[in-house]
Amino acid sequence: MKQSKPLRIIPLGGAGEIGKNMTAYEYGENILVVDAGIMFPTNDMLGIDYIIPDFQYLLKNRHKVRGLVITHGHEDHIGAVRHLIDQINVPIYATPLTLGLIEGKLARSGMDGKAQLIKVHAGEAVTIGPFRVEFVHVSHSIPDAVALGITTPAGLVVQTGDYKFDHTPVDGWPTDFGKLAEFGRRGVLALLADSTNADKPGWTPSEQVIKPALESVFREAEGRILVATFASLISRMQQVADVALEHGRKIAFVGTSMVENAKIARNLGYLDIPEPMIVPLEDALKMPPEEVVLLCTGSQGEPSSIMGRLSVGTNRAFDIQPGDTIVLSSHPIPGNEENVYRTINRLFRRGATVIYDPIAPVHVSGHASQEEMKLMLQLVKPKYLVPVHGELRHLHQHAKIGRELGIPAENTAIVENGQVIEFVDGEMRLGERIPGGWVFVDGSSVGTVNMDVLREREALARDGLVVVNLVLDTNTGKMLDEPEIITRGFVHPDDAADLIPAMSKRVARAVRSAEGDVRGVVKQVLKSYLFNETRRRPQIFVAVTEVKPQTAKTQWQDSIAA
Amino acid sequence: MKQSKPLRIIPLGGAGEIGKNMTAYEYGENILVVDAGIMFPTNDMLGIDYIIPDFQYLLKNRHKVRGLVITHGHEDHIGAVRHLIDQINVPIYATPLTLGLIEGKLARSGMDGKAQLIKVHAGEAVTIGPFRVEFVHVSHSIPDAVALGITTPAGLVVQTGDYKFDHTPVDGWPTDFGKLAEFGRRGVLALLADSTNADKPGWTPSEQVIKPALESVFREAEGRILVATFASLISRMQQVADVALEHGRKIAFVGTSMVENAKIARNLGYLDIPEPMIVPLEDALKMPPEEVVLLCTGSQGEPSSIMGRLSVGTNRAFDIQPGDTIVLSSHPIPGNEENVYRTINRLFRRGATVIYDPIAPVHVSGHASQEEMKLMLQLVKPKYLVPVHGELRHLHQHAKIGRELGIPAENTAIVENGQVIEFVDGEMRLGERIPGGWVFVDGSSVGTVNMDVLREREALARDGLVVVNLVLDTNTGKMLDEPEIITRGFVHPDDAADLIPAMSKRVARAVRSAEGDVRGVVKQVLKSYLFNETRRRPQIFVAVTEVKPQTAKTQWQDSIAA
Repeated sequence: MKQSKPLRIIPLGGAGEIGKNMTAYEYGENILVVDAGIMFPTNDMLGIDYIIPDFQYLLKNRHKVRGLVITHGHEDHIGAVRHLIDQINVPIYATPLTLGLIEGKLARSGMDGKAQLIKVHAGEAVTIGPFRVEFVHVSHSIPDAVALGITTPAGLVVQTGDYKFDHTPVDGWPTDFGKLAEFGRRGVLALLADSTNADKPGWTPSEQVIKPALESVFREAEGRILVATFASLISRMQQVADVALEHGRKIAFVGTSMVENAKIARNLGYLDIPEPMIVPLEDALKMPPEEVVLLCTGSQGEPSSIMGRLSVGTNRAFDIQPGDTIVLSSHPIPGNEENVYRTINRLFRRGATVIYDPIAPVHVSGHASQEEMKLMLQLVKPKYLVPVHGELRHLHQHAKIGRELGIPAENTAIVENGQVIEFVDGEMRLGERIPGGWVFVDGSSVGTVNMDVLREREALARDGLVVVNLVLDTNTGKMLDEPEIITRGFVHPDDAADLIPAMSKRVARAVRSAEGDVRGVVKQVLKSYLFNETRRRPQIFVAVTEVKPQTAKTQWQDSIAA
Repeated sequence: MKQSKPLRIIPLGGAGEIGKNMTAYEYGENILVVDAGIMFPTNDMLGIDYIIPDFQYLLKNRHKVRGLVITHGHEDHIGAVRHLIDQINVPIYATPLTLGLIEGKLARSGMDGKAQLIKVHAGEAVTIGPFRVEFVHVSHSIPDAVALGITTPAGLVVQTGDYKFDHTPVDGWPTDFGKLAEFGRRGVLALLADSTNADKPGWTPSEQVIKPALESVFREAEGRILVATFASLISRMQQVADVALEHGRKIAFVGTSMVENAKIARNLGYLDIPEPMIVPLEDALKMPPEEVVLLCTGSQGEPSSIMGRLSVGTNRAFDIQPGDTIVLSSHPIPGNEENVYRTINRLFRRGATVIYDPIAPVHVSGHASQEEMKLMLQLVKPKYLVPVHGELRHLHQHAKIGRELGIPAENTAIVENGQVIEFVDGEMRLGERIPGGWVFVDGSSVGTVNMDVLREREALARDGLVVVNLVLDTNTGKMLDEPEIITRGFVHPDDAADLIPAMSKRVARAVRSAEGDVRGVVKQVLKSYLFNETRRRPQIFVAVTEVKPQTAKTQWQDSIAA
């Protein structure tokens, strides 16, 4: 049977990572979107809060979009749901916990009740346009995560989402090996598979390895225990609660997202903590230190999180006290290492004992390592492999693993975001490249910052700024007053005070000798002079006000002192 | 015998790391300085090239400074020698290779012949004022590294420098266990020991583990091989050369520092490569790809290094070609992970195969892990332990290791840079805190940038900049022209174009209603308006020019477009 149209698969979004936060499946007049997550900015994205996928292709084809399927409830998969739904309000399909977390997020951003939420349990299937989507349970560091088996007119495509093959997961619900094997028997056209740990040999340890490490912390801690982790790491909450129960400590949840996610997960039955075990923070702070554990946000040292504020002494409700043991149950997000380690150093300085990996195995990855990737390939037996969820280096490594297992290079597509992959009559080919990068979110506004703006910020940040205000006589072209010169972020104020008279002299000379473009000449003169003096190239702004009279007075006011 | 004065030990410099780049030993009228290195800036030090220790205490006491002893030739131990010697020209004591590398660096910065360089071989001792300094060979990732046994009037102090206990080092010269044990028998007052890997359990593998990994790369590579590493990792050069010899590939050194350091190390006999094995780059580029290996700078992805330029296609002499295999034989410097991985991704994009740890063990740490730290403590048997060379978290972990080996907490000093530690009559106490942080080097100028300037850069980088130029009638206070408004690094130019008329209107209204401080009022109005519109707080500069006439014209010129 010949297929009439190509199936198009398009990875979208992600800062350096491919197909992590959003993927589109397009067949004729139908588009199915998988995931809508956010990414954290890299260090060179100055002033950016977070990044969302660039989905202008979806906006242009909004009439085609039939639904949004979410694989699991982590920020990098659900964080941009509100941005997408705000513009294209299609039904959202997800498992109960994922849906609960999305609902909570939408409510917090004032979009309560605006979305159509459709509950699908792992093991069930839904039909969305020409796509039949089967939800397959996978273990990950959050319960109720799924891989997707998407039957399309072009064939069966499997997208793993984030997964690991944990034989002893916290919730006792391992990855559905049988279903994946059944896909393999049915015949899989293409596998889009998580590449996060493609450069890690072996198997990722089970979440269970954390338990002995936590137990040893609880045995040795003489004061309070504070555990910091992602608010969406529901499995980790469960593990801490289990150990706390054994050691007779009560739990307080600290930080808005931690409190809310725990509530959602408990209500839906994904977090099993007896009611009397949980105490409000106010009560916990009054209890003997050895009887409580505080589950806090801030494992990445974010300045506004509980751990971030505790590390610099600006947390309102309580402070670090000697005898506190702090467990950072997470790994730094790539690029955020410096921030995390700085926070750890500060917590030590405040008298706490800080336990983190590799001091003790208090965290384990939620993603498959190389041997698990091989197992996935063996179970699913895809004709084509599309490594996704990783940086280019991970995709290449994943492709190499594929080759070792007999998937030839020509049956593997290593693409970047926005690259359309087409399947026609069982053959894969590359389509066009559409905009598929990311959009910056800065403050409340989305997309008003682009790379050019960031480059301007970078230039300002590199060597600072010099602003010159000139008042010239319209008729004679002569300066009517000393030029006003201010600097910011350029050199030490004392050194600037030394430089300004010399700059002023050079500006005056330049104005006298300039023919035509006064501003250009002044800028050029200052640029050379400052580079010679300081080897720096500040951004230089020259304002020229031309006036007729003999008197003019200029005064500066800046916002920094205010 | 009572000692008349206290021995004072002062760790200096280092961005977050303690006692890494410089340490001062002071007794009465005598100061001995150990090491003078640089640090790389952290991500939040915008526009900074590198950091040197703040040695104003030494400058104030320059008459006391008797000499500078260097433990080994890495940048973080010799990079600031020229800055120190430029101001306090004391004799420099070091082993032959270290001295050779210092000499080369001084020559490159035009200080040829200006320093007094005194050669001391490992195993020898020198007397510098009241200090007798014994040089003890240690293995590290550069040959000819030493620990120091410093006999002072207060007792024997041992400073390890950077070290590991490698039983099979590349140069066949292991750490001098015997000498360290002899110190232990003599009685050691205090040990200042490397804490870099204090959170790594076990032993650091021998440098030998790299050889099989390199051999497998050489066996499999079909085209050129490019190996990137630090130019000061002389041992790594030797290993690459050994494997290249076995596989019949010639070596070309690429990058100024790589070429020069290889020359120095070969001349001094620390790098054993037969002359015919080495070819100039021009020749290497003409040879069949499978017959050459290029040893390049840029293992940290520095934009100006060979690897940095190859990754973006701006290297002049040659480009990446399909079939190239690139080995990154180094670990990212903490905080630089993002930059390194971005470079790797770009090299993949250009068609190279990139091998890096953990893909293959092509790098190993040069620093002791926990079990080696224990061995050091067992050999030296110090009364007091001063963990140095690490962040606060590492020092705490090192202190814990000390406690496990019987050094009580009260005999351990965890201090920060600039904290004076005093020893009198065999007892340790904390002295005063002196300036001991770091000094920024930005462009050619040292120390003209301080934290305030960086905070200004950060503010500019966060949300950019809005500059307003107002021309007012001196008599009436009325605006004589539309206000000129420009933005940089704030919002997308299209959005700025939308915002400017609205800002202009609000400025005009503010000027009309303002009484007194026009500039302050305008600034405040814009601040609130822009925050409401964009949730951002750009830096706002308002210039007011007061003139008498009825005509005025203002034009802006900025330096960004140029």
